[in-house]
Amino acid sequence: MNVVTCIAPVNIAVIKYWGKRDEDLILPINDSLSATLHTDHLCAKTTVMTSADFKEDRIWLNGSEESIDNKRLQNCLKEIRKRAKLGSDVGSWKVHICSENNFPTAAGLASSAAGYACLVAALAGLYNVEGDISAAARSGSGSACRSVFGGFVRWYSGSKPDGSDSIAKQIAAPEHWPEMRILVLVVNDTSKKVSSAIGMKRSVATSELLKYRAEHSVPWRVEEMTKAILDRDFTKFAELTMKDSNQFHATCLDTFPPCVYMNDTSHAIVELIHAYNAAAGEMKAAYTFDAGPNATLYLLEKDVPEVISILNHYFPTISLGDIGVEYLKGIPVQPAAVSEDLLRRINAERQSPGKLKYIIHTCARDIELIDKYGVITSLFGACIHKRDTRPLQEIVGEIIGHFVAYEEELGKRGTIFFGGTEPGMLDVLMWPWVERAKALPLAFDQPLNFDKEKFPHLMKWINGMKGQKFVQKNFGPFEAFAKVIKAQDDVDYDSI
Amino acid sequence: MNVVTCIAPVNIAVIKYWGKRDEDLILPINDSLSATLHTDHLCAKTTVMTSADFKEDRIWLNGSEESIDNKRLQNCLKEIRKRAKLGSDVGSWKVHICSENNFPTAAGLASSAAGYACLVAALAGLYNVEGDISAAARSGSGSACRSVFGGFVRWYSGSKPDGSDSIAKQIAAPEHWPEMRILVLVVNDTSKKVSSAIGMKRSVATSELLKYRAEHSVPWRVEEMTKAILDRDFTKFAELTMKDSNQFHATCLDTFPPCVYMNDTSHAIVELIHAYNAAAGEMKAAYTFDAGPNATLYLLEKDVPEVISILNHYFPTISLGDIGVEYLKGIPVQPAAVSEDLLRRINAERQSPGKLKYIIHTCARDIELIDKYGVITSLFGACIHKRDTRPLQEIVGEIIGHFVAYEEELGKRGTIFFGGTEPGMLDVLMWPWVERAKALPLAFDQPLNFDKEKFPHLMKWINGMKGQKFVQKNFGPFEAFAKVIKAQDDVDYDSI
Repeated sequence: MNVVTCIAPVNIAVIKYWGKRDEDLILPINDSLSATLHTDHLCAKTTVMTSADFKEDRIWLNGSEESIDNKRLQNCLKEIRKRAKLGSDVGSWKVHICSENNFPTAAGLASSAAGYACLVAALAGLYNVEGDISAAARSGSGSACRSVFGGFVRWYSGSKPDGSDSIAKQIAAPEHWPEMRILVLVVNDTSKKVSSAIGMKRSVATSELLKYRAEHSVPWRVEEMTKAILDRDFTKFAELTMKDSNQFHATCLDTFPPCVYMNDTSHAIVELIHAYNAAAGEMKAAYTFDAGPNATLYLLEKDVPEVISILNHYFPTISLGDIGVEYLKGIPVQPAAVSEDLLRRINAERQSPGKLKYIIHTCARDIELIDKYGVITSLFGACIHKRDTRPLQEIVGEIIGHFVAYEEELGKRGTIFFGGTEPGMLDVLMWPWVERAKALPLAFDQPLNFDKEKFPHLMKWINGMKGQKFVQKNFGPFEAFAKVIKAQDDVDYDSI
Repeated sequence: MNVVTCIAPVNIAVIKYWGKRDEDLILPINDSLSATLHTDHLCAKTTVMTSADFKEDRIWLNGSEESIDNKRLQNCLKEIRKRAKLGSDVGSWKVHICSENNFPTAAGLASSAAGYACLVAALAGLYNVEGDISAAARSGSGSACRSVFGGFVRWYSGSKPDGSDSIAKQIAAPEHWPEMRILVLVVNDTSKKVSSAIGMKRSVATSELLKYRAEHSVPWRVEEMTKAILDRDFTKFAELTMKDSNQFHATCLDTFPPCVYMNDTSHAIVELIHAYNAAAGEMKAAYTFDAGPNATLYLLEKDVPEVISILNHYFPTISLGDIGVEYLKGIPVQPAAVSEDLLRRINAERQSPGKLKYIIHTCARDIELIDKYGVITSLFGACIHKRDTRPLQEIVGEIIGHFVAYEEELGKRGTIFFGGTEPGMLDVLMWPWVERAKALPLAFDQPLNFDKEKFPHLMKWINGMKGQKFVQKNFGPFEAFAKVIKAQDDVDYDSI
């Protein structure tokens, strides 16, 4: 039995994706733009297992079994199996999937995005698939392709019928705007909502306003938003974020029958944020709502303590004012005292206690290491394909230089894996390259000169990875790999 | 002191008015279409008084004094005073206005439409103004111009800068579709909403979707709706009504900051109606929401008992199932037993008790008599202006023929006035013509041949009207009027 466990991040769009122009290929009617959130606080976690004993593919979501005959799931499985680098026996084994979120599913918290990004990463580990997995993730859930990257990510709708130009790209790393913070306000609500997949299909079929939005509003908004992010212009960013959330929900309401995702509490949050910004005389916070009642607030680090206090004033907890770690999750924050004068100037209604279930304080981070890893893999590829004719030591020296950031990051996190106590998406994506690095000195008859003592955390990481069952099962015979590189001038790396 | 009391009906739009292209002249950005409701169940009632003792113009709304320095009020006063036919002393007296609704104000029940239609009618009575008052009503509140007519009324946006082609017209009398019924569901809600006037101004300034709606959606919808009404096609009527309500609220949500008028209960009503129509396999009812949380349902008479039962099942009263006259107001109706099978097929959530405050069952009627009165006034006018050269008796015979319907209606109502125990809008508008009818035989030296015995109710009405203070104060000297008609070949009737 092979087992791989991955975690993957949630992304929250500031320019919303709503509506497909191709239901089969999952191609959107407009560009969208999101921030990928830190996996410490919001993530999906997926374990995939494959075994000769399994009679059929099966899936469990948050503990209960669901039908595997789900088109999106089948798309992902097909896409990954097509690219599997396994012996034909293992490749034909059935797979069992267990997936769970550390946040409410189907509550409009982009759970399917994280879920499918995670599933695809886990399957990629299990089937030893290398390279870009964002298109495979998209085949499960459109917005999942944005969760494959960190920071601020734009998903280009593209125009080609085959979808080959409908891809996600990072427009800015999280370090570009390190002050950006996110508060997820989880609203008490039990009512059933129309699923995003059904909702957007119905909107495309019935809403005139959605068509107008996709063709005329989003194109300039996404450019303005990109500029606001690159300029770190919070006022512009906040205004566009709120307007786009509102317009997305407007098109849902224009759908027939209408899709309603926000509830009275959601609208009370909207009212409070506008009242707060007005009282403060500047943009302090921006709300955005996905296909559910929960609010995501974007704000700057300096304003978090005040905003927490104001939220606590207008949305008192059941225990009236007591906000412990069970209520305020994520990055610790000390609420600030708010002046009576400011409270007086905020023109909003105080809600009855218990309208919010809890708040998660998080930030955009983490996945930039995945993006950067592309530099390493292309150096590696150029070397194998002999496109880079420098001496091996020079190329490897450059690769090792890039690993310094990963070494430092592991040191900062204090965990064996990037994913924490278990391998995450980054760990799984990095491994195949590290595993095969040993083939290079053999293939080129030159030493690597890798100073293990400078990379104590990465060495622990390598040992940790080697202890993983899925790694042991798929461990590549690097000597054979070296021979292939050596023998062929024009090696087709993908066929190995 | 002169006193006039009037009542005026509410109208509920099925193609919504939202947004002005001219704030001063109150010219809309798109056509709208409404049904005028029966005044027995929903109306505004206004009393206007004028006296030499009053020091200033004052207004009381639902018992509490409001500022008279309201631009809309001032517009109405100016418009009516401009056309006043009073001695200069009375014309310069200050006016006191008392207005109240028999339904919640500012709850999105088109209270301002009824209120301003009523105010203008009352002022017209007080200042002895004749002719079309819909433009004057519009100067108070746009949609008030639709309340001046009965049945189904279209307000043409017009295109002239001076607004002279922005007028309301009846497209079908209530008798055209007598089966049409209306249920107003008054929702329990205390939250403040942005006023229509402010909301639509903000929408025009900020919503891209509103601009699209006004230019592209409404033009074909209003034509389709007119056709649906003329064809009595309830399925089409219902679909357009719901879609247009949804689109209007979508543009409110697209406004920045957003205007939210519907609440969770409103959306639960929407969900129930869609679920009910789906379970029934046909359009049984259509919802529409003005700028507030209350729902108005349009449905056919035959379905009222079933719909009442279904509403009572999904929106139980506080007393759980007990629906007395205090809860179900308006036209009496016996709820029908609903089959278990139908209830099983309706896919909607049952609400906790008390979400609805009460229900009003009403219909579109009444004001058609005002519209018909235009035939009488134009015959009268053509006679005075000597455009109609037939013998007086022939013209008067035709006029008297038209009065038969009014005689019969008063008989049916069993009240002295059309407005009930007090003069309503129709009574006030009719009076000046009746009062001056006596001038005709004098002016033309021919007898009228009016058989009083055939019109017992109208004779009681005339006596009743003569008992009204405002009539006594303004009673026209018909002998003088006769002399004017006789003396002038080309009489300018408006200057009399």
